[in-house]
Parts: sequence; structure tokens; C-alpha cells
Amino acid sequence: MENHSTQGNPASIVAGGAGFIGANLCARLLEEGRTVVVIDNLLRGSRDHLSAGAATSRLHFIEADLAQRAPAQAAFAQAATFGAIDEVWHLAANSDIPAGVADADVDLKDTFLTTAEILRCMKANKIGKLYFASSSAIYGDLGDQPLHEDIGPLLPISNYGAMKLASEALISAAAESHLERACLFRFPNVVGVPATHGVILDFVRKLKNTGNSLEVLGNGTQRKAYLHVSDLIAAMLLVRSRTDIPKTLPINVGPVDEGVYVRWIAEQVVARVAPAANIQFGTGNRGWVGDVPKFHYSTAKIQALGWKPALGSEAAVLRAIDEIARQEGF
Amino acid sequence: MENHSTQGNPASIVAGGAGFIGANLCARLLEEGRTVVVIDNLLRGSRDHLSAGAATSRLHFIEADLAQRAPAQAAFAQAATFGAIDEVWHLAANSDIPAGVADADVDLKDTFLTTAEILRCMKANKIGKLYFASSSAIYGDLGDQPLHEDIGPLLPISNYGAMKLASEALISAAAESHLERACLFRFPNVVGVPATHGVILDFVRKLKNTGNSLEVLGNGTQRKAYLHVSDLIAAMLLVRSRTDIPKTLPINVGPVDEGVYVRWIAEQVVARVAPAANIQFGTGNRGWVGDVPKFHYSTAKIQALGWKPALGSEAAVLRAIDEIARQEGF
Repeated sequence: MENHSTQGNPASIVAGGAGFIGANLCARLLEEGRTVVVIDNLLRGSRDHLSAGAATSRLHFIEADLAQRAPAQAAFAQAATFGAIDEVWHLAANSDIPAGVADADVDLKDTFLTTAEILRCMKANKIGKLYFASSSAIYGDLGDQPLHEDIGPLLPISNYGAMKLASEALISAAAESHLERACLFRFPNVVGVPATHGVILDFVRKLKNTGNSLEVLGNGTQRKAYLHVSDLIAAMLLVRSRTDIPKTLPINVGPVDEGVYVRWIAEQVVARVAPAANIQFGTGNRGWVGDVPKFHYSTAKIQALGWKPALGSEAAVLRAIDEIARQEGF
Repeated sequence: MENHSTQGNPASIVAGGAGFIGANLCARLLEEGRTVVVIDNLLRGSRDHLSAGAATSRLHFIEADLAQRAPAQAAFAQAATFGAIDEVWHLAANSDIPAGVADADVDLKDTFLTTAEILRCMKANKIGKLYFASSSAIYGDLGDQPLHEDIGPLLPISNYGAMKLASEALISAAAESHLERACLFRFPNVVGVPATHGVILDFVRKLKNTGNSLEVLGNGTQRKAYLHVSDLIAAMLLVRSRTDIPKTLPINVGPVDEGVYVRWIAEQVVARVAPAANIQFGTGNRGWVGDVPKFHYSTAKIQALGWKPALGSEAAVLRAIDEIARQEGF
């Protein structure tokens, strides 16, 4: 990670690039030979996550809060000195759903205002391509209906989902006005390392602390689909490579199966890191306000583009449990 | 409009109550015997619009910018001294679509941040019922498909539409967390007086200025559905009276016809205010970036609740032309 000028080289801005998914994405963009400029406020991300790219002078890091106008403008200006920026990956967002329920400002600032300022900077700097990390949470709780991209009404039940949908809306308007291309990737639950949050990390850390007991929010019957981060990155890069897609494309990315139960995840984590521990379940099938108990996620659209995950929910979770266990010293 | 205390009386806050639709709504809420507290920043609204209610001590006016936290909190605190607030009508928003295309901050602040602060104040003051002026613009340009409430994807093409959708999303999350009820009224183009903006007022004022010539943006083949404000208010009050609707209800309000052409509106305005004037049309079927040329608006859902407009698009526009002509001194 050096500051040698590589002006002229095709370059990507990765907003939130020091986070879990961002760090994985950066590694792949560097493999493509691109210059990569990470802009991150390090609220949840960490420079340590970028160690894999530290060996190359094509990786640059700018610490800035993109939700604020002046720092955002300064960061984009600095980024332009490192290369010819032709795309922005926007993965900067709050990722703590309960925190956003307690205080609506968290998602409003960290997710939505970040989107607004990124779009303003893209317009000012004439950067045309935006790849946005949206979420299955924009669908809210539509019951048993398969969640495909043409469904409505979109009534998110958390500020997290609401500010992802609000961001999609603003990006859509910007595509009409000044963007060349806008891909709205609606992420499922994604697992892998470097883990910064999520149910597996929670369980592993609880067991690390207690040694022999794991308390689970809810009765464990919540079922969710999980994608391994390696499959998510592959999906985004595939969509990015297509020239035959609409200018503004909302697209679900997720496993093709129906997901796994929290109870099963808890059992697998215990088996991996503390086989003698016992599990205590709570009551109810929602872990917190804003938690959708289960949903059927349609990935027909991205499958029609030729994508299929290498790992289903079970395999993704098992691999992530092992990766996260190792990350946490087990 | 006096400040005598009427504490204990059921009271409504009408955010944006000094605007076109707000003023019409206030008159009807006063007829119900309610105390009405208008909160308006007077950016586009005017106290003159509230003259009809000036005779009653149940109408109160607070000038405040609800997009800003401290003024919003102070306004809600003051409103509570006038009566027992049990509902908020949120009609405070930017209504100038082109202004929002030129500067994304306009809709972001005047529409979206206003929603965010209103929700924060409702939570703090334990006010449970929210009636929100959303827009058909949230649907974007879905071509010839009938626009019903269950359709997607929602890709608005203006910041105006984007910030209405963003507001819906935030309200939806708030309904999961602290609201009792949230009605999301998706307005069509609404006509009537006191007119503050819109195509009819534009045409009348152009003719007032030029006397004998009217320039029309676009080729006049844009077709739009129009509702008279009297029908809009009746629709909202009907939905509000129903107890058998979902807690969070997005609902289209609009005429049951397919609308009228801009060319026809121009001709009718000329006939009413300057019969000798000639009309010059531009080119293209969009008047400005973010203008959806035509759409088929489904109102099946509100019709199923027993509502039907008294006036179709043609009758609504003709009545509004006469009302606006008189407002402008013709």
C-alpha cells in the first residue's frame, strides 16, 4: 500500500472497502490489474482487512466519512490522483440492524447520506458506473411469496432495509440524470472472513467468553439463506462483465436453496469450537425488531445470466464457521 | 387563527398545511371539529392559503423547517400545547420536480429529511397515526404496465420520486417499530386552488405575461391523469375512516380514466384566458428530465374500499383552469 502515482491506470473506488465484503472485493479487483482506492471511515472496517493487498502499490487507502460533504469531496479528489476512476463500488453502510432500530440516525447517515454524497461526487467527477450493495431487507416481510425483483409493495421493516431502499431510489434517479450504469445488488446474508458481525461471529465469540454455554435469541426456528462471500463477489463481477443488461438493474444475489435454521447453525458452531457446550434457546421466531423470520429469495434473474453459487447455504455456513473459528483463535 | 388554549381537544398536525393540498385538507379537518396545527416553512406555502380557517380559534400556525431537528422538536412541543395530537398529516415536501433534478439536496432535505424528523418527533411524542402524501412518481417509468401497488421494481427517475419512495421506506420501518398506522397515499397529478405550481398555473401565468402566445415544453403528446383536490381529500378521509386496512398501507389515489394530453390542456387554458393566443409546441414527449410521458395508474385498491372520484381528468382540469384563472385575475 504505497502512494506512488499510477495515474492513467483504470481505477476503482471501493467505498467501505475495509469492511468484510469490501476487503474480499478489493483482492479480486487487484487481481484484475486495476488500481483500487479504498475509502472507509473505519467505523466497522479495519486496515488489517486489506493486508492481502499491502504488497502492491496499486492499493490506496483514504480514511474519510463519505456521509459528510467536504470529506467526501476531498476523498474523491485525492482518489483521482491515483488513477483514472471509472467505477465506484458502494459498500459503505451500517451493517448493525439492531443499532439502526434503536437510533434511526445510524442507517440514515451511514447508509443513506453516504449514498447521497457518493452520487454527488460521481456527478462532479464524471464517474459513470456504480455498483451498489443493496439488500434483501428492502423486501420487508412479504410472507411466503417468492421475493423476485418485480414484486411489491416494498415495505421494509427495519431502518437498515429502509435506507438501502432509499439508496436504491436515489441511485435510480441519478441513473436517469447522470450515471452510465447502476447495478443494485440485493445481497442475502453473506458469510466468510474477515468477519466483523453476524450470527456466526456472535456465536463463536459468546462461546469464547462463556466456554460452555451459548444463548440464542429466539427459538432457533428462524431460517435464512446464506451465501459465501466468494460466491457473492463472483456474482457481482459476472454482472459487471455483461453489456446486455438494463442501465439500472436491481438484482437479487443469493443461494438457490431455502436456507438453514439458526438452531442448526448454533449446533455446528458448538461442534466446531466447543463440543461440550450446551445451547439455550429463547422464545419467538424473531431475534430482534426488524428481523424477518424466513423468506423465499428468488435468484432466477441472476441465474438466467449464467450465475450459480458454488456453495449452498449449508456448505457456505460450514466453511464460514471454520474460517471464523480460525479468525477467532480456535 | 388565535392562540387560545384548547388543550384536550383531538388535534391534527398538518405538516406543509400552508401548501396547496394542505390548505384544502385543513379546511376539512376543521369542519370535523378538530383542532388543527399547521407546521410549514413557508418556502412554497403561504399563510394566505389558510384564510378560510382564520375565523376559528381551532386553527394554529407554526412556522418551522421540519427538516431540521431542533426546530422540528420545538414545533411538535408547541403543537402539543394546542390540543391532544393523535395524528400527523405529512404533506411537507418539495413540489418542484425540475428544481430537484438540478440540485439533489432540494428533495433530500425538503422531502426526505422532513420525513425523518417528523418520525423522530412522532416517536418522542407518542403520536401513532401518520398519513403521508406519497406520489405516483415512486413507480418511475414502467412503460405500459398498469401501475398497481404490488408492482416492481420501483425505480424512480427523479429525485422527487426517489425521496418520496425513501420516505415511504422509512415510514414503513417506523410502523414496525413505533407507529400505530401509516397510510402512504400515492398521489397523481392534483389540480385546484390555491395553485402554487403545476402545468395549468404555468400556462395561465405565461399567457398573463405574453398576452398572445404560449410556449409548451415538449410536443404536447404527454398524457397524464389529473385528480381534483376535492376528490383527493375525500379519498384520504375515506381511507382514514376505515379500520379494516393493514397497518402500513400504500395506496394509489387517482382518476379512473387514462388522463388528458398536455396539448388539450394548453388549448383549454388558451380558450379560457386568452382565446386569441397561439400555442408553440417544442419537440419530444418529455417536458424535462424526470417527467414520465404517460402511465396507466391502477386505482382498483382504493375503488375496492368504495371510493370513486366525482370528477374525471377532463372535468377536474376544466374546473381547475377556471379556478386558477380566477386566482390569477382572469
